[in-house]
Amino acid sequence: MAVAGPDIEALIRQLAKLPGLGPRSARRAVLDLIKKKESLMVPLIQSMERAVESVKICGTCGNFDSQDPCALCLDPKRDISVICVVEDVADLWALERSASFRGVYHVTGGLLSPLDGVGPDDLNISGLVARAGADEVKEVVLALSATVDGQSTAHYLADRLDGANVALSGLAHGVPVGGELDYLDDGTLSAAMKARRPV
Amino acid sequence: MAVAGPDIEALIRQLAKLPGLGPRSARRAVLDLIKKKESLMVPLIQSMERAVESVKICGTCGNFDSQDPCALCLDPKRDISVICVVEDVADLWALERSASFRGVYHVTGGLLSPLDGVGPDDLNISGLVARAGADEVKEVVLALSATVDGQSTAHYLADRLDGANVALSGLAHGVPVGGELDYLDDGTLSAAMKARRPV
Repeated sequence: MAVAGPDIEALIRQLAKLPGLGPRSARRAVLDLIKKKESLMVPLIQSMERAVESVKICGTCGNFDSQDPCALCLDPKRDISVICVVEDVADLWALERSASFRGVYHVTGGLLSPLDGVGPDDLNISGLVARAGADEVKEVVLALSATVDGQSTAHYLADRLDGANVALSGLAHGVPVGGELDYLDDGTLSAAMKARRPV
Repeated sequence: MAVAGPDIEALIRQLAKLPGLGPRSARRAVLDLIKKKESLMVPLIQSMERAVESVKICGTCGNFDSQDPCALCLDPKRDISVICVVEDVADLWALERSASFRGVYHVTGGLLSPLDGVGPDDLNISGLVARAGADEVKEVVLALSATVDGQSTAHYLADRLDGANVALSGLAHGVPVGGELDYLDDGTLSAAMKARRPV
C-alpha cells in the first residue's frame, strides 16, 4: 500500500528491485537515504552516475571494469599461460578475493541450459576457443559450478577445446574448509574420500 | 580486498552503507546494477535525483513528502482531533500500512535518551505542545516504543501536555496477532493477562 508520497514510493519500488532487498528493507533504506541526503544519497547518486558512464565489459575476458581491456588482462604480473573459465563476474571476484589464482580469466556469461534455451551461441565461448588457441596458453581451468548445468557446460567446453594444445583442469571437490562433516551432502563426502591425501 | 575497478569498488562501498546491505550483498547488487544498466541503474538514479530534489520534512508533523505540509496533514478526510505521536517516519508508515488510524501524526524524530545526550530540545516536542494546545485537538496517542527510552519519553510528553486540554492514550500491550505464547517474553504475557477481555 502506498503510504508515502509518490516520489518516495517510486524510489522504494526501484530500490526493492535490487537483489537482497525486499520491499521492507527497501523502505528502511529509503528512509535512511532521505535522512542522510547529503552524506548518503548524493554520494550514492554520484557513484552510480560514474559507474553508468565508465563501466564496460572487457572485450577479452568479459570482466567489468572502467577500462577495456580490464586491469586484470593488462596486468603484466598475471600469468597469461593459464585461463580460468568462470560463469559470472561474481565468481571472478570471489576467486580474486581468495587470492589463489594468478592467471587470467574468461567469463562465459552463464551456463549452457537447454531447458532455459541457453545454447553455445548465447555464451562467450568462441572468444575462449580463440584465446585458448594462442601459443602462450598452456592450461585452462574450468571453474564452473558443481551443478548439472555447470558440469555439462564444462564437458562441452572440454570438447570445444580439444583441438587447442592446452591442459584442462577443474576445481577440486572436497570438504569446505571449516565445514562440519555431518552437515555435508553424500556427494561431497564421497568425493572428498575418493580424493583423500596423505597427511 | 579491492578486486574490481575503482569506480565499481566505490559504488560497492556506497551501497554497503545502506541498512540491510552488507559488503557481500552490496557486491551482488552492484553486479546486478551493472548488468542491467539501462533497466535498473539509470531508473534508480533518476528516482534518487527526484527524491533529493523534492522530498522535504513536513513543517507540521515531521513526515517526509514532496509537499510541505504533507499529504496526510492536508487530507480533509483525516481526523485532526486526534494526533498520534511516533518516534520515526518508519513508525508512521507502519501505522498507515495497518490502516488502523485516521487521525494525524506527529513525528518526534527520536526518543529522549540522557545517556546518548538526546534531550527535549533535540526532538520536535515544542511543535507537538503547540499543536495539542489547539481547540480542535481532543486526543493525543503516544505510540512510542515499549522500551525504557520510549516509555520515559512518553512520561515526559504526558507531563508537557498536562496543560493542554487533551486525552492521552497509548497503544495496548498484548499478544501479537499470530504470535505463539511460548515464544513471548514474560512482560508481554503478564500485560496480556492483566488486560484480558471477555470473549
